[in-house]
Formats: sequence, C-alpha cells, structure tokens
Amino acid sequence: MGKRVAVVLAGCGVFDGSEIHEASAALVHLSRGGAEVKIFAPNIEQRDVVNHLKGSPTEEKRNVLAESARLARGNIQDLAELKASEFDAVIFPGGFGVAKNLCSWAVDGKNCTVNEHVSATLQAFHSAKKPIGLCCISPVLAAKVFPGCEVTVGQDKNVDGRFPDAETASAIAELGCKHICKNVNESHVDEANKIVTTCAFMCKAPLHEIFDGIGTMVQEVLKLA
Amino acid sequence: MGKRVAVVLAGCGVFDGSEIHEASAALVHLSRGGAEVKIFAPNIEQRDVVNHLKGSPTEEKRNVLAESARLARGNIQDLAELKASEFDAVIFPGGFGVAKNLCSWAVDGKNCTVNEHVSATLQAFHSAKKPIGLCCISPVLAAKVFPGCEVTVGQDKNVDGRFPDAETASAIAELGCKHICKNVNESHVDEANKIVTTCAFMCKAPLHEIFDGIGTMVQEVLKLA
Repeated sequence: MGKRVAVVLAGCGVFDGSEIHEASAALVHLSRGGAEVKIFAPNIEQRDVVNHLKGSPTEEKRNVLAESARLARGNIQDLAELKASEFDAVIFPGGFGVAKNLCSWAVDGKNCTVNEHVSATLQAFHSAKKPIGLCCISPVLAAKVFPGCEVTVGQDKNVDGRFPDAETASAIAELGCKHICKNVNESHVDEANKIVTTCAFMCKAPLHEIFDGIGTMVQEVLKLA
Repeated sequence: MGKRVAVVLAGCGVFDGSEIHEASAALVHLSRGGAEVKIFAPNIEQRDVVNHLKGSPTEEKRNVLAESARLARGNIQDLAELKASEFDAVIFPGGFGVAKNLCSWAVDGKNCTVNEHVSATLQAFHSAKKPIGLCCISPVLAAKVFPGCEVTVGQDKNVDGRFPDAETASAIAELGCKHICKNVNESHVDEANKIVTTCAFMCKAPLHEIFDGIGTMVQEVLKLA
C-alpha cells in the first residue's frame, strides 16, 4: 500500500497563493511514488489578491480553500479537518501565499505568526515522528515552529544572481535554526526532526531543474515515511 | 539554440480555465527540451467563473489573460500579439477553459465558434508548416479549424470507465476528422498537418501518467519543429 501523504496548499498563484508549478511537481512525484494523496487548505480569506498580469494587488476577495481547489481539481478539504493520525507524511509547496496566508512572514518576517491549523498540523506530524516536506519559502514555517531545526532555502548569498532572496537564510538563522546551503537540484534532510526541504523557486533556475529538486524532496519524504 | 515555442492558455483551473497540471507539465517538458517559451492568452472575459470547491458557477468576472498569468508567473502576453513568424511551434494545454474561452465547444459542441485570435494562431502555424501540439479537449480546436486532420482525445469508447467523455471522439469524426484511439501515455502525430495530440485528463489516470503522456506530445512537437 502506498504512503498516505497530506499536501497543504495556500491558494493558487505564486504572488498570493501556492506556487502552481511547485504544487503540481509535488503531486506528480507523489503519484509516481505510489502515494495516496489528500489535499488540504485553510478555509480563510486570502491576505490579498494579486493581479498576476500587472503584479499589483486588487480590491477582490478570494478564499484560500476555494482557490486551492483549482490545483486540487475540486478534491480538497478544509485544513481544520486534517488528522495527522490518518497520514504518513505532510508536504507544503511554496509560493508567496505561504508567507501571506499560512503565516504572516510576508509582512512580519521572523516575528510572524503562523495560522493555528498550520501550526497544529506541523506539530502533530512532528510529535508523531512523521516526515514534513517543504519547499521554496515554506521552510520558514518549520523554522518558526521548530526552533533549532535544519532547513534550506537555497544559498545564504545571492550566488551568480540566482538567489535574490538569500537574506531569508539569515532570518532563519536568527530564529535559532541552522540554514544549510543547497542547490536547486538538492534537498536537505534534517534526520532528527524528519524535515526535508528544497529551495525550488527561491533559485532562478529552469523549470525542469526546480521540478527535479522537488522530486528529491518528495522521494526523501516517502523514504522517511 | 533551443526551439521557440508559444504556449497558449485559457485561464487557470480545470473547470473554467487551463488545466493547471497539463499546463505545468507542458512547461516542464519544454524546459527539459531546451525550448525558449513564451506564454500567451486572449485578453477576454472568462465565459464563467467556477468555484472549484463547490463545482458551481459564481457571479464573479475574471479575465482569461490575468488568470493565465498565474500559471505564467506574470510573464505572459496578449494572444493578439503572437506572431507565428517568431516561433517554431505552438502548444495548447487542455482544461474546460479551452472549450469555454478559446472556443464555444462547451455549449455548442461541433457547431462551436473559435476565438478569432486562436483561429488565426492555428492557421498561421499550419500555413507555415510549423507543428501544433494539443492535449485533453484542445484537439477539438484542430478538428474544427482543420477538417480532415487526425487527432486523439483518447479512446472512442469508455474503456474500463477510464474515458467518460469518449463521445468527444464521435463529434470529432462528425467534423470530418479522423479520431485515432490512443492511451494516456501516447501521442498521435498527424504528419501531414504536423498536429500532435495526447488525451491527458480525458483519461482517468494517475497524474504521473498524464505528465508522461504530455511529455511524449512535447517531444514530438520539438522533433517536428
């Protein structure tokens, strides 16, 4: 029987929701790994709605669960209903929606608050020693909830102009965590905490390299599950 | 130098736009194939906006180009600006948005009209003998614009309950085209018309099989380009 994996989304679109290609890549790799996947998102209003053509916020209101349902093809549940006991692992794709809707990192940085259901989910999997996979900006959730853990968001310097958000690594270190430098095609495994992270779109790289990097994260998660 | 490929989207979400995983898969395979990709969508209002959680239409209005920009991470242009002379091939991912926004197949079936810029794009690539790749429901665009062409939307019978929309194959035949039965991991190449099609989500299959099927379509398109 395949591993039972929960995937937690934050909307649909890089600037105000889950990064679409990261979420899709995680689901493709989980499918290939034979996992039984259920998808969840919090039933809350998005922090903002960004017109992705113009790059600017609009006056619209959208719901995180309803927009995440676009990625889930309608097959999604309220994160409040997620029971860690029914799963072997949990995965959080990235995108600004993670820093806007799942926590307040986008405005508060390391002083952010984390959505109660996101925090409860992370703690439930961690307490049960079940693996947690995160990519792109999502590792800040682990850094905030599990001080002392090891994560990667890529490089801690803007190497070759490919890591424009390298200062995220410093903020993670300020939270008492250890940032491990990794390339886009690699994951870091914090064996003690069963936390697997990869930088994905934190690195400016061709899409297939990001896809493959997320593949390594998913494979490590399934191995630990 | 990589092949220059235009990808045409129809929104963002299976029920009213481009099918997200099909679009992402096409872009991953194009990236791996070294293609230089530009993304386009028509600057028109969506036929409808579907709440993907409930599966029902809402009162909202959304713009096809602005919603497609979510899939394109903002890097997208109005389809009216696409010049076939600047590209070696064009690809249309599927999703109901193709049948709602790029043509009126969702309401008119084989008597549908095709958006003028979509029709002009298809005809320009076809006249220039440049390949056209389509998946899922998108092959109906080719069937409507190029009577006599060969396409696949999977099987013409609901084999093992995996092809619930098999009657689409009959409608394609009624348009004077030849429907070729193919499995989800295969593409059909109409060599004469340089049209490459694969069924994708027209088949109920695990996501990685759909991903791989789209890979065969992209590879055939790049080969013909």
